Amino acid sequence: MIPLTPIGVLRTPFATIADCPRNGRQVVPAPLCSAEVFAEFRDGLESLEGFSHLILLYWLEPRGPAALRFTPPFDGLPRGVFASRAPWRPNPIGLSVVRFEGMDDGVLRVRYLDCLDGTGLLDIKPYLPSTDAEPEAAMGWLAPYRTG
Amino acid sequence: MIPLTPIGVLRTPFATIADCPRNGRQVVPAPLCSAEVFAEFRDGLESLEGFSHLILLYWLEPRGPAALRFTPPFDGLPRGVFASRAPWRPNPIGLSVVRFEGMDDGVLRVRYLDCLDGTGLLDIKPYLPSTDAEPEAAMGWLAPYRTG
Repeated sequence: MIPLTPIGVLRTPFATIADCPRNGRQVVPAPLCSAEVFAEFRDGLESLEGFSHLILLYWLEPRGPAALRFTPPFDGLPRGVFASRAPWRPNPIGLSVVRFEGMDDGVLRVRYLDCLDGTGLLDIKPYLPSTDAEPEAAMGWLAPYRTG
Repeated sequence: MIPLTPIGVLRTPFATIADCPRNGRQVVPAPLCSAEVFAEFRDGLESLEGFSHLILLYWLEPRGPAALRFTPPFDGLPRGVFASRAPWRPNPIGLSVVRFEGMDDGVLRVRYLDCLDGTGLLDIKPYLPSTDAEPEAAMGWLAPYRTG
């Protein structure tokens, strides 16, 4: 067992699961969200200015046990959870690539989050197009449902 | 404190930290690596065929305490750990976008890993260009050191 500690909290306009969009780019224009980094971790933000996009990792509060297979209502066939971005994973770590619009006093202004208000933040990484961008990637069973 | 459980193990040609490349695309051609998913989690792999790229999350065995600020030897200025992909993070979760070349019996063939052989695998996510690809993203202080 590996212990994690939240480094901050995410603020979004989504108060309930029903409010959350399927992904953070579905709402146009994408609402402004924020990532509030706790005071004791703010030294880690040095030199973050200059990156236009970040990868945020956060804790998807498990609502029920992990399901390895499930049937998405929009699709109707059983799919593996590792072939989806669904939250009921063995390790429920969420990931979003967000647009970064600056920060003040440890509060980062970001867009493209789709998670609940109050979600625990685990990590911030700079987005590097040299290793993270695959614009031509094939989307498998999700291709017919592509948005954005 | 949040508990995590490894779902598998990563196999790479890199036996020591000194062997690891700075990123998984630095060695050309990128060596074939694998992600071995433990038997009890393999049901979660259903429908993974068809995705050309995956996001792997893994546990960067902490070698020493987290450092919020550090001075990269190739740069010489103090940088925040959240503005880097360095392993000494408060929650040492590593992330790689990998090319996916198929699987047999729960063993995925992938390229572009840069981590140690034996690294614990935490999660597999399908890479979705609609939300994950930002080929024009600005790389901040890392721009002069771009490889790939």
